[in-house]
Amino acid sequence: MTLDTQISCLAAPVSGLEIIEQINAGKIGPDEAFAGFADAYDSKEDTLSCFVSADYSKAAERAGNGPLRGLPVGIKDILETNDFPTRHGSPIYANHVPLGDASAVALARKAGGAIVGKTVTTEFAYFTPRGTKNPWNPEYSPGGSSSGSAAGVAAGMFPYAIGSQTGGSVIRPASYCGVAGYKPTYGLIPTQGAKPFSHSLDTLGVFAATVPDCAFFASMLTERELESPQAPTPPVIGFCPTSQWEHVSEEMRDAMDTAMEKARAAGATVVEHDLPSIFMRAVEAHSVIQNYEAVRALAWEWANHRDKLSHKLVETLEESETISPESYDAARRVAKAARLALSGVFQNVDVLLTPSSEGHAPKDLASTGTPTFNKLWTLMGTPCVNVPGLFATNGMPLGVQIVGAAMTDRQTLQASAWLEKALAE
Amino acid sequence: MTLDTQISCLAAPVSGLEIIEQINAGKIGPDEAFAGFADAYDSKEDTLSCFVSADYSKAAERAGNGPLRGLPVGIKDILETNDFPTRHGSPIYANHVPLGDASAVALARKAGGAIVGKTVTTEFAYFTPRGTKNPWNPEYSPGGSSSGSAAGVAAGMFPYAIGSQTGGSVIRPASYCGVAGYKPTYGLIPTQGAKPFSHSLDTLGVFAATVPDCAFFASMLTERELESPQAPTPPVIGFCPTSQWEHVSEEMRDAMDTAMEKARAAGATVVEHDLPSIFMRAVEAHSVIQNYEAVRALAWEWANHRDKLSHKLVETLEESETISPESYDAARRVAKAARLALSGVFQNVDVLLTPSSEGHAPKDLASTGTPTFNKLWTLMGTPCVNVPGLFATNGMPLGVQIVGAAMTDRQTLQASAWLEKALAE
Repeated sequence: MTLDTQISCLAAPVSGLEIIEQINAGKIGPDEAFAGFADAYDSKEDTLSCFVSADYSKAAERAGNGPLRGLPVGIKDILETNDFPTRHGSPIYANHVPLGDASAVALARKAGGAIVGKTVTTEFAYFTPRGTKNPWNPEYSPGGSSSGSAAGVAAGMFPYAIGSQTGGSVIRPASYCGVAGYKPTYGLIPTQGAKPFSHSLDTLGVFAATVPDCAFFASMLTERELESPQAPTPPVIGFCPTSQWEHVSEEMRDAMDTAMEKARAAGATVVEHDLPSIFMRAVEAHSVIQNYEAVRALAWEWANHRDKLSHKLVETLEESETISPESYDAARRVAKAARLALSGVFQNVDVLLTPSSEGHAPKDLASTGTPTFNKLWTLMGTPCVNVPGLFATNGMPLGVQIVGAAMTDRQTLQASAWLEKALAE
Repeated sequence: MTLDTQISCLAAPVSGLEIIEQINAGKIGPDEAFAGFADAYDSKEDTLSCFVSADYSKAAERAGNGPLRGLPVGIKDILETNDFPTRHGSPIYANHVPLGDASAVALARKAGGAIVGKTVTTEFAYFTPRGTKNPWNPEYSPGGSSSGSAAGVAAGMFPYAIGSQTGGSVIRPASYCGVAGYKPTYGLIPTQGAKPFSHSLDTLGVFAATVPDCAFFASMLTERELESPQAPTPPVIGFCPTSQWEHVSEEMRDAMDTAMEKARAAGATVVEHDLPSIFMRAVEAHSVIQNYEAVRALAWEWANHRDKLSHKLVETLEESETISPESYDAARRVAKAARLALSGVFQNVDVLLTPSSEGHAPKDLASTGTPTFNKLWTLMGTPCVNVPGLFATNGMPLGVQIVGAAMTDRQTLQASAWLEKALAE
């Protein structure tokens, strides 16, 4: 790490599980714990712009005695909240205050989380960034679309955040911001009250300092038991370069090598695992499905407020209008065939290991990077975890990704936590 | 038909296609055509209560030159509209005016439809009725949950309406109200901006006077070509009593016999077609999936406004809370297996024929009837059409249902239109 990046580094993710352990042991009070996060917000928000709107002063809300113990939670600003405006990253919704909460927000409150604000999202969770900076170095992008949720966890402003992924909007920013990110099996966290972009791809996910923290928080939102003790035996890991390997940076290749070495050293079996050729077509199918659905999901905005959409989104939706129902149906059939083929892949390995992103975050605040290594898995509906712990020579984080079979979220998180520990050795 | 029901019959569905033909031929002007529907509204709404809110005076909106020629369209009040309140049949949303339109509403406007108001829905499209009466006899239920959409088409207040089906909320009210109803393949009409109840079942559908009218209107909402010329050859129809046959009324049994006789007389092949045993489990799976998802879709209302929910809904959601994720996952697996088995069924027949409802509408305004013959097909995601044209001895309509394979909507509508014509012979 160079001196320059050390000076500007505002990254300091905090594990909620550790804090809750301290609270439960009587070492600190919930208010004191909360204040630590509020301090991070006070001192860093001006530089990082993680929030669209925030309020750390709502003490009453924190009285809840749920498992989250009143700790702050950040909510991506495409999820409705009845106490904060919900702007979807778009001027069309500048004054929009919904009547109720999105289901995932209601579940977070029920679990004793204190919603401290709405985190920055790109426009409708697509590509156009809205000013958030990377806590590891504010000259770098935090990634997108869940920019503020990932950056806020990385900066220690809140231990838990909700995001969403349609292309790579959970795993990519988690990789860039050096935090754990978890995109569950499609549909596992209820999406009601989240602004749709592509209904068959949109998946809610979570950010936290560590993989076990993700499992803990996601258990509240899915109302499923996703936590598990340390894995009894090391996993069988399939290294999966995918057809996109040519896009991987030198440093990410090194990171993948390191991850495999450390996994082997800790006892895992790592085998290279190629994907059947249908998966190359599936990557293309993702864009067809996403864009066909997006122009319909945004039918009202498209008909009435085209002038308030970004150039990039207008360009995409204009192209979307030319996609025929036949092309869309064909893309859906490819996706279905690939999902079927994928169940065969998981007969030989417990999980797949693949990069979370092409490389570290771009040094360009006008970009949020590309979802090269995420789109396929979003389309497959499989659980994905960004495992943090590795870094490029410039000090920026490099995340590696664990992918599991659909509905094996608990095992996927367990293998990811195992790897996270192995990387720290 | 007895004298009593003749006196109170307010049913007079009007085919939009016929009106548009007259407009295009210069026989009547669009304003004149619109006025006919407005007159029906003026004279019948007080008796029938099809609307939550209505405004037939918005002439400007009708200036559109789309294929719908400014004809009035009714929108079930679970779809967001930016010019009418959207109450979801619940006092919780009494003052709720959304910022934008649901996608399906935006698409109806784009096609030149004039949204004249929000039609009565049961509470959150579940069971608790909100006062609409059946135009064939106001002492009878119009069915639910799309009560106002079905009754309004039957009364000639609008030629086209949007509804939704999670159990049997399109096909059942269409059957009771003697109009054509079409529930497309799951997902074909975009659902964004419709209040979710059970996301993997909720399906938008349409009502109109005739099956070809449904195909015409649904083509606008799906942006797919669903209209077709008269079928070249009569269909092969599988008569499908299902495991629920014991619930069918004597008069509906007669109606099914009549339908088969008339179909055969018109040249169709009709064979009895039993379903594999997995379908009995699928019927049970429907309720598990629906209720598990509903308590999550309504997480905010459940946490904050339980006192404003109906007794029936509270009872259901309390029970829903006891459904384990394991039971839900198992129910989803049953549904998947049944969908797979169904593709085998359609290798032998073009479409299935089954009752739309147990019998005619109940003479009980506190009930909307039961979705006995609808739940299975909603779960299967297959296109379903209520074919009107038959009646009970008391003058109330009895609908028969055509079910096609998923994604064969055009052929299913074609076969249904064929049957509709055969029933009229």
